[in-house]
Amino acid sequence: MKHSETLLAQAYPADRLILREVGLRDGLQLTRQFPSTVAKRDWITREYAAGVRHFEVGSFLPPRRFPQFADVREIVSTVAALEGAHSIALALNERGASDALQTEVNEVTLVISASEAHNLANARRPQAQSLTEIANVVRLRDEAGASTLLSVGISMAFGCSLSGAVDPGEVERIATACLEAGVDKLGVADTVGYVGPRQVGELCRRMSALMPPERPYAVHLHDTRGMGIANAHAALAAGARVLDASLGGLGGCPFAPGATGNVVMEDLVYLAEISGFATGIDLEALCAVRAIPRQAMPDEPLYGALAQAGVPQKFAWRAEEAGRH
Amino acid sequence: MKHSETLLAQAYPADRLILREVGLRDGLQLTRQFPSTVAKRDWITREYAAGVRHFEVGSFLPPRRFPQFADVREIVSTVAALEGAHSIALALNERGASDALQTEVNEVTLVISASEAHNLANARRPQAQSLTEIANVVRLRDEAGASTLLSVGISMAFGCSLSGAVDPGEVERIATACLEAGVDKLGVADTVGYVGPRQVGELCRRMSALMPPERPYAVHLHDTRGMGIANAHAALAAGARVLDASLGGLGGCPFAPGATGNVVMEDLVYLAEISGFATGIDLEALCAVRAIPRQAMPDEPLYGALAQAGVPQKFAWRAEEAGRH
Repeated sequence: MKHSETLLAQAYPADRLILREVGLRDGLQLTRQFPSTVAKRDWITREYAAGVRHFEVGSFLPPRRFPQFADVREIVSTVAALEGAHSIALALNERGASDALQTEVNEVTLVISASEAHNLANARRPQAQSLTEIANVVRLRDEAGASTLLSVGISMAFGCSLSGAVDPGEVERIATACLEAGVDKLGVADTVGYVGPRQVGELCRRMSALMPPERPYAVHLHDTRGMGIANAHAALAAGARVLDASLGGLGGCPFAPGATGNVVMEDLVYLAEISGFATGIDLEALCAVRAIPRQAMPDEPLYGALAQAGVPQKFAWRAEEAGRH
Repeated sequence: MKHSETLLAQAYPADRLILREVGLRDGLQLTRQFPSTVAKRDWITREYAAGVRHFEVGSFLPPRRFPQFADVREIVSTVAALEGAHSIALALNERGASDALQTEVNEVTLVISASEAHNLANARRPQAQSLTEIANVVRLRDEAGASTLLSVGISMAFGCSLSGAVDPGEVERIATACLEAGVDKLGVADTVGYVGPRQVGELCRRMSALMPPERPYAVHLHDTRGMGIANAHAALAAGARVLDASLGGLGGCPFAPGATGNVVMEDLVYLAEISGFATGIDLEALCAVRAIPRQAMPDEPLYGALAQAGVPQKFAWRAEEAGRH
């Protein structure tokens, strides 16, 4: 077994559902306020205590333009100090990936768009060039002998704000090219929150068929149009076992100002448990962590219904009681 | 064909999806503020113009205790004046049903709880007595020769705040008893918003098998724990063709103060269309109607993501484009 395959199996055991907290990266991408390093640490530590193990910690980007991620190295260290926790950082180019590989971060995510128009507009390069850079980062990692997983997030995988519909065959083509380039892990993202459960189910069934079970793919959904939890359920039903979400649904959409953000982690945990997937997450403790972003970013709305209503007291909703999947 | 069967086929054509606006009844059940009669009329008229045809208009209850429904007769008349529109009113006993039958209301809904404990606590009578009363109302309607559909909503059908889990077999038993009593139409309600899509799918598959296609059953879901749209999708996938929702998700839960309410109509329309079910509803026009409850009840929160984000401009989400189901 290759070193990276061992790391992958440890970080993403194929037999369980993994919910990743992306609020500290995607959730802060568009906010005007952001938590201090101390508040971020507190957030991670308390969410870890509630049972969450996978944290997107930030982006390796120029701190002058992205001050919310200036402390990404310290946040990587915060996660590294928690036993069994897994940190993920975003890098948008070889430079960022090279910086990330010099830290203790467990996983570096690169991005390619499923839409050539969007890749050109957003990353200012054609998809082919993005694929070359992805291969370069794999080589960089292997030459350095770094114990870092490399993943690629395929953005606009369910529809594009510029070119509309995206052919699932195109997503498969990019996914296959990434695997051939040596990438450890893939993800598909509904970046703009266009899509419904039917389309999520269709693409996820294709991804489940394409990817070997020991390489679970991540599904990154937004709740921009209220479909977040329904789409997450469709992904689960189609075999997805790694889902992204953020506490309080933090995050937004660059193409829809004021829109809701990522799938709400608290509601997603409820969905998972009541669908028979044990998450190992204490939902009441998780809801209590909302106090941290609320205090650190009082102007940012926090979403989520479960935190308002509380968990049912006389109804078996936990997977252990409701029947493990 | 019996007269009521003809009425049923006209009001609920079996070959299309019907989304019913329940904001003017269930949505006002717990609010401290409520719209004036003029505002209610404006609400209905504009939502009708946007394409909605089915409106729950209020309850026949003592106006001193329920002032929000004191104008229920005028609201019935408002709907009666709109061609092809269908009004539904709630009655909690024979007295209320008798009052309702003297109006132009198109449908009277009676309620029975799937849980004996809840029926005793809420309606203060055993289920058997509720069934007797339901049969009495059918006789009352038939003797009066009234052109009014009679329906029964089975509350707590997916779980009970008092007794926890509810056996789907018990829901089937009550449904069968109601049909035998001569009821035209049935509904199942997740009154407390406990349930997830797996359980909704299970019960709806049983209801779809139990009910003949010309008797579509209604599914009434709450978004109390964020599962509303996911549950609605599960109901659609299991064959349900009548779903309740409210503009802005108005409504609450008596057992969870501050909790979110009914499924958000705007988000549900988006779900339906992107799932391939043409609704005939103009989503932008529907979102604009939110101004009415916002003005009439400024202290009541309005929910819903779609209204914040808007509909995608370059992405085929309408059923006509996305592929009619």
